[in-house]
Amino acid sequence: MKIMNYPRNSRNTIKRVPKRGHYDRETIFAILDAGFLAHVGIEVDGQPFVIPTAYGRDGDTIYLHGATTSRLIQQGQSGIRMCITVTHLDGIVLARSAFHHSMNYRSAVLFGTASLVPDEKKEAALLIISEQILKGRWAESRLPNAKELKATSVLAFQIEEASAKIRTGGPADEPEDYALPIWAGVLPIQQGYGEPVPDDVLTAGIPVPESVKRVKVKGEG
Amino acid sequence: MKIMNYPRNSRNTIKRVPKRGHYDRETIFAILDAGFLAHVGIEVDGQPFVIPTAYGRDGDTIYLHGATTSRLIQQGQSGIRMCITVTHLDGIVLARSAFHHSMNYRSAVLFGTASLVPDEKKEAALLIISEQILKGRWAESRLPNAKELKATSVLAFQIEEASAKIRTGGPADEPEDYALPIWAGVLPIQQGYGEPVPDDVLTAGIPVPESVKRVKVKGEG
Repeated sequence: MKIMNYPRNSRNTIKRVPKRGHYDRETIFAILDAGFLAHVGIEVDGQPFVIPTAYGRDGDTIYLHGATTSRLIQQGQSGIRMCITVTHLDGIVLARSAFHHSMNYRSAVLFGTASLVPDEKKEAALLIISEQILKGRWAESRLPNAKELKATSVLAFQIEEASAKIRTGGPADEPEDYALPIWAGVLPIQQGYGEPVPDDVLTAGIPVPESVKRVKVKGEG
Repeated sequence: MKIMNYPRNSRNTIKRVPKRGHYDRETIFAILDAGFLAHVGIEVDGQPFVIPTAYGRDGDTIYLHGATTSRLIQQGQSGIRMCITVTHLDGIVLARSAFHHSMNYRSAVLFGTASLVPDEKKEAALLIISEQILKGRWAESRLPNAKELKATSVLAFQIEEASAKIRTGGPADEPEDYALPIWAGVLPIQQGYGEPVPDDVLTAGIPVPESVKRVKVKGEG
């Protein structure tokens, strides 16, 4: 179902291997919702900056938070053009030829501008970021007080244009190379959670919370 | 040992939590050498682009490759300012308070410009990228022919300024929050390799190569 496509233009159209390009919200949102770390691009005084930061998505809005004094918050609220990229690396594709080596990946590239979330909506936006990182954790935590909310700013970035690029599957070699005695295939790359590590000074008897129990820990099968 | 620092200025100095900032090559190179996926920032016609791509490091040079016609190759060789960011996410830090939640991570942010690698040095640069992705694979592969080399371009990005930012360890809560009955600690995030998946049409009897055997597969203990 390819519904609700983002508009296409020279900025967001995938030119290299066009079949890997996607412009529909369903595909792009699935990539965004599978992660919580974005790389955000802004330009300041002729120098691009690429800043790794957590995010939360609500519809076409991406929320980014930070200290009120941080570069991203200061610059982003001025309405400058931004680019937000989220990438999941799924594997190294080993072809018989060096040339046809590749990666399996899912990436989403978003273009737009941001504005500062007003004070009365800040806590709701922070909740969205928190839920994206670890669902249910917000409700387990001591919620922010007025001073803490004041120290934090949130940007609301509106997705104006976007594209996704996805590669899956095995290698594609030149016809004459298939006869070579060279191993070919995919070396999968997996990201997951390790066993939770309690704080050194955790009060005895406090169990691992539901938010943590809900995520799959590696090796649990 | 804090030797060979990159110069510091307003662009690369870590202002938020300065103790997490590092400017020495040893620390920055260790972060770069632990990965092979970078997010590269360039600005074109007033719009920043953040492009995920593989890289290889040789000293202060970062090699990036791509189709000769790609935006990154085309723009990068013109000498525009670039930013290359490499991020490793190590864990979600769960504090008792929502405000003190954090991430454990290692990131390196590099500023500089790039130039096109001349034809006679292209294969050596591609080898460096290949070795960064999977050591030893290049020597196992059918090497690039003249046509393949021509279709690929390589940028040599020179690190002019750089910084690393690292957070490790458990949560740091407000003194009065330690008495709360809320679990706190770190949920580690781990990236690793899955079992290699042979190409569907792999000739029978070709064993998994040394390059793949050398990397640790998850669950092997």
